[in-house]
Amino acid sequence: MPKIVDHEKRREQIAKAMWRVILDKGMEGATVRNIAEEAGLSLGALRHYFSNQDDLLVYAMTLVQERATARIETVVTKNLPPKEMVIAVLLEIVPVTAETRAEMEVWFSFMAHIQHRKDTLAIPEDMILEGVRKLLGHLAASGVLKEGLDFELEIERLYSLIDGIAIHAFFEPERLTSEHVIATIRYHIDSICQN
Amino acid sequence: MPKIVDHEKRREQIAKAMWRVILDKGMEGATVRNIAEEAGLSLGALRHYFSNQDDLLVYAMTLVQERATARIETVVTKNLPPKEMVIAVLLEIVPVTAETRAEMEVWFSFMAHIQHRKDTLAIPEDMILEGVRKLLGHLAASGVLKEGLDFELEIERLYSLIDGIAIHAFFEPERLTSEHVIATIRYHIDSICQN
Repeated sequence: MPKIVDHEKRREQIAKAMWRVILDKGMEGATVRNIAEEAGLSLGALRHYFSNQDDLLVYAMTLVQERATARIETVVTKNLPPKEMVIAVLLEIVPVTAETRAEMEVWFSFMAHIQHRKDTLAIPEDMILEGVRKLLGHLAASGVLKEGLDFELEIERLYSLIDGIAIHAFFEPERLTSEHVIATIRYHIDSICQN
Repeated sequence: MPKIVDHEKRREQIAKAMWRVILDKGMEGATVRNIAEEAGLSLGALRHYFSNQDDLLVYAMTLVQERATARIETVVTKNLPPKEMVIAVLLEIVPVTAETRAEMEVWFSFMAHIQHRKDTLAIPEDMILEGVRKLLGHLAASGVLKEGLDFELEIERLYSLIDGIAIHAFFEPERLTSEHVIATIRYHIDSICQN
């Protein structure tokens, strides 16, 4: 099935080029033209993947999710103790590196873009809420979660904490350093786990 | 000093008109033209207050802060028990009503707008971090805060939680109802206070 292989290779080539452009120029610079140039492809070839700015934004969001998912899967296979695993996974989704900062920028651009859309856009599902549920489920199943907690409210609390700290780290990197982000997340997880 | 009175009256007139436009049309509809029409003023009179979209956005942000500050001052004068006061203040800054939703929209538009600005914009100071510090200080001074907490990390945690839940309530009002927002905030404050 050579056509499918070609399609996958091309897709990967575009994804990598798009990511380099986002890292270098931000989402504002991630135009179809710039991505085509970076990928060494014609505009026509690129338009097969996204014909307008909406498609491009959805593609970027999909890319963010694929990248984050791949990193998280790597963390999960490390067989860390439950609490350490949960903290390590959470640190993959907050902007503490250039990579995760770029991902955050895509996310923020996306949210600002869809804010006033009356029509529907194929929004990739936000997997963070579901991920937070799984992480807390893992802590519970491992017996390290404190007793007497309200599981549903703990999900909402951690979900809010993570997105809030991600936004603060993104907009105030000088005040909220990576060390500070890590300390806050660890502090929260410690507070809901048994000593 | 009739001129100063006039200036203040005019400012109030514009602020009210701007707010009605934002509530009705969102930040995207808050153009100088629409605000002038709503205020019953000439474009020239409006331009005295904001000559371009930047000025207008800064004005809207200032307005949001004035409105929130006024509501919070009202809450504070109610002499509620410490924990109830803190929860009531926090509920004035998350989008659980049409008013606070509109404020959140202004904030989000503002953040999206300044994200890529290379030049400086007169950004009104974010008073939420300072407010959170004061609220936790009030709980500590009143002796209701649990012992053994890390005060600085508690500030960061509550600050993140509030902004995270505000964003979630704004973008997912159907999933995250006002009741759910209130329950999560109460749950968090309960968790750091003595029974």
